[in-house]
Amino acid sequence: MKELHAVENWLKSYNFGELFDPKKGFIKEIKDLVPDPSLAMGNSKYARGGKEVMKDLKLPPAEQFAEDAKIPGTMGSSSMRRAGLYLNEVFRLNKDVRNFRMLSPDETYSNKLDAIFETTSRASVMPSEPWDKDMGRDGRMMEMLSEHSLQGLMQGYVLTGRHAVFASYEAFVQIIASMADQYAKFISVMRNYPWHGQIPSLNYILTSSGWRQEHNGFSHQNPGFIDDMLHKRGCFTRIFFPPDGNSTLAVLKDSLATNGGINLIVAGKTLEHRWLTPELAQKELKQGLMVWDFASDNDPQIVFGAAGDYLTKEALAAISIIKSETPKVRVRFVNILELSTLGVGGCHVPLTFEKYFTKDKPVIFNFHGYPQTLKELLFDYHENTGRFSVHGYIESGSTTTPFDMQVRNETSRYHLVMEVYRTLGALGDVEKAKASSLVEKYQNKLTEHREFIKEHGVDPQEIENWQWTKKS
Amino acid sequence: MKELHAVENWLKSYNFGELFDPKKGFIKEIKDLVPDPSLAMGNSKYARGGKEVMKDLKLPPAEQFAEDAKIPGTMGSSSMRRAGLYLNEVFRLNKDVRNFRMLSPDETYSNKLDAIFETTSRASVMPSEPWDKDMGRDGRMMEMLSEHSLQGLMQGYVLTGRHAVFASYEAFVQIIASMADQYAKFISVMRNYPWHGQIPSLNYILTSSGWRQEHNGFSHQNPGFIDDMLHKRGCFTRIFFPPDGNSTLAVLKDSLATNGGINLIVAGKTLEHRWLTPELAQKELKQGLMVWDFASDNDPQIVFGAAGDYLTKEALAAISIIKSETPKVRVRFVNILELSTLGVGGCHVPLTFEKYFTKDKPVIFNFHGYPQTLKELLFDYHENTGRFSVHGYIESGSTTTPFDMQVRNETSRYHLVMEVYRTLGALGDVEKAKASSLVEKYQNKLTEHREFIKEHGVDPQEIENWQWTKKS
Repeated sequence: MKELHAVENWLKSYNFGELFDPKKGFIKEIKDLVPDPSLAMGNSKYARGGKEVMKDLKLPPAEQFAEDAKIPGTMGSSSMRRAGLYLNEVFRLNKDVRNFRMLSPDETYSNKLDAIFETTSRASVMPSEPWDKDMGRDGRMMEMLSEHSLQGLMQGYVLTGRHAVFASYEAFVQIIASMADQYAKFISVMRNYPWHGQIPSLNYILTSSGWRQEHNGFSHQNPGFIDDMLHKRGCFTRIFFPPDGNSTLAVLKDSLATNGGINLIVAGKTLEHRWLTPELAQKELKQGLMVWDFASDNDPQIVFGAAGDYLTKEALAAISIIKSETPKVRVRFVNILELSTLGVGGCHVPLTFEKYFTKDKPVIFNFHGYPQTLKELLFDYHENTGRFSVHGYIESGSTTTPFDMQVRNETSRYHLVMEVYRTLGALGDVEKAKASSLVEKYQNKLTEHREFIKEHGVDPQEIENWQWTKKS
Repeated sequence: MKELHAVENWLKSYNFGELFDPKKGFIKEIKDLVPDPSLAMGNSKYARGGKEVMKDLKLPPAEQFAEDAKIPGTMGSSSMRRAGLYLNEVFRLNKDVRNFRMLSPDETYSNKLDAIFETTSRASVMPSEPWDKDMGRDGRMMEMLSEHSLQGLMQGYVLTGRHAVFASYEAFVQIIASMADQYAKFISVMRNYPWHGQIPSLNYILTSSGWRQEHNGFSHQNPGFIDDMLHKRGCFTRIFFPPDGNSTLAVLKDSLATNGGINLIVAGKTLEHRWLTPELAQKELKQGLMVWDFASDNDPQIVFGAAGDYLTKEALAAISIIKSETPKVRVRFVNILELSTLGVGGCHVPLTFEKYFTKDKPVIFNFHGYPQTLKELLFDYHENTGRFSVHGYIESGSTTTPFDMQVRNETSRYHLVMEVYRTLGALGDVEKAKASSLVEKYQNKLTEHREFIKEHGVDPQEIENWQWTKKS
């Protein structure tokens, strides 16, 4: 009781009775402190998104920056160069509305997105020096080596109705995995409350990918953020692996037009092959995945499924070899553009899985991320998983040549070719002795490659200058 | 040429010739700057681990703190209370060697690990006040709300041969996912270099788990770190889900005795059932998983597989209901203690999968983390995955009752029971009409529960005071 009285005396010492009357409520001086409802924080239009604060971006057509890809395999496509041109135009078209920013913990030059500097610059409020390049007080590219700060800035910017793209080295975006997770929880709850207006999506470009870290190596390889975002429920995360420049443009335009979600675009910056015309890119975007006719036969005996630009290239190179060694073997190539189409949470029209991957033929997947990530999706098709084989990043990295990265992770064309002949040999689709000798041939190729890179430090010409051909 | 000369003049301005002679090399003054090889940084014993700096911890036997669990289902087991007692003894036994620390971004009291304060305290170098409790300048518990700082401290501590345990709310350990990933890369490479001595493992306790966040809700639920660590290759990550206090003790002792790895121990802090005697806990630890005889029949028609304390409880409660409703239905219960035993990277003796999960019977998994995480492991058994059903955390959380969390994520006993009767009804193992009426009964139970918690704000007694019984 003594302690209770002490508490009572303490609380009474605030003289609450002077401020509050049990019948009349608070006195005038207190009531006057309460802001007008229109000024209450929760009533700020900036707290609610929606039409009052949000203006859709003016988006240029993806075709405006398209590359000629009428002949599949034409050389010269850098997904990030294309993205840079497109984003520069987005900055230009929305210059007056001032509702678009980019953020990056890396050098925009390093990520090959520097075409944006035609229209904007890197934000800097420090005194400028004559040698400063592409920096300015009104710069709309926030370049700062702090993933956490940028994620925070982006969330505030997007929550108040503006649009943003976060470009990062793939490996280091996992630094903000926990922040992105909390934000995803917010979105998933927000969507249940009709009074909350729409807000733009978070858009991440994951580039300088783990497959092309020949100078940085193992520390710069981590596709884990893909898993983090794939596990979010509520059908608002989309994960794209555009295989070339034209598909990157299609995905980028589509992502910038979406609201209330999270888009991941995983694409490289190096100069690679063009595979899809703008029309085909659009078609694949709509479906999420697509059979590539130019690399496929009717009634296939074996199917390839690839997601990711560098992994797509290896799978196509394997097909090229197979059609050259054994022209009668019938293959199919399926490219997976949007990983989220494959499942998790039942967000999409159930995939007519067999339409793409046949009913009973062996399927070899070559995947940009961890093999497990694809396995957890394939699990849901309730098949005997024995007919699926999944190649991907198995944490076998180093400072080495681009092709050796594929070799170390068993995603290389030679690994895929060997697996095809082992599989088709066992099935009797290729004569056993022939299959064995082909497996041996490409096993030797791997040994030769090892010797070659030890001596020269670069990949051999037949890899570096590989061209798509399919003999049928 | 003008610029080349400018560079040349600039470089020459350093007068390198005064310091270096092409024939004799560097002059004496420079050579004297080079430390004795024994003082070179790379030669510091602290840079290399191994016997010179590392002393194994003196570890008390797990049995010293064991609970009586001769009767499975005995109430009164808090995994964290047990862990606290054990860790206190570790502090005591290694007091003189001073080579053990704990780190936590949370309150040690909140995580129920405060038994350690009998021997140590929280490190603090601020002036102390009379009301300060369990704080001291020589405190070996580093309690600081910065996951990043603690991870950094722990890495330095462990790399120089000392031992540590990092205790965290499960949801927030993902904040250091990227740091842990980089450290894992270091371990995986280190293990290939015999000149690098051994170092202790990183030990994480993930508690205050997402399943028991009735006051904090959705923001405190994130089992993503399990996936991050599961994807590491090289067989040095182990992920444990001890189902009770005795198994927590067994796992903790085992983890503190290991070197060069990463151990995750995922266990709750609430007062729950005791399932395993110390002997059975040891047996299950050796195997990684175990059929629990007290909850299993011969020749089962349906199999449960559970990983995680709260999920184990729900599965056992489901078995309890099934044996009461339909005593003739034969079930088996398999508890998965070490998730890593199930695969990824071929680190373990291939599991005799059918020994545990039969050849062709339906298996219902109830898993602590994301269902996908288990699916990616089951994929590798190359079965028709249609006979597996995986329940787990599907991001359906809120501030709600503990049982409602299970209901929302479809891991509740009632969900499991309904699935069993749907499955066995379809197979003809339970008569169809009977199966349907039982499904309906437990569907109604779910509705009743919903009504009850709306009115009372807590779970009904039959849930809160549930006791294990199995009629056979």
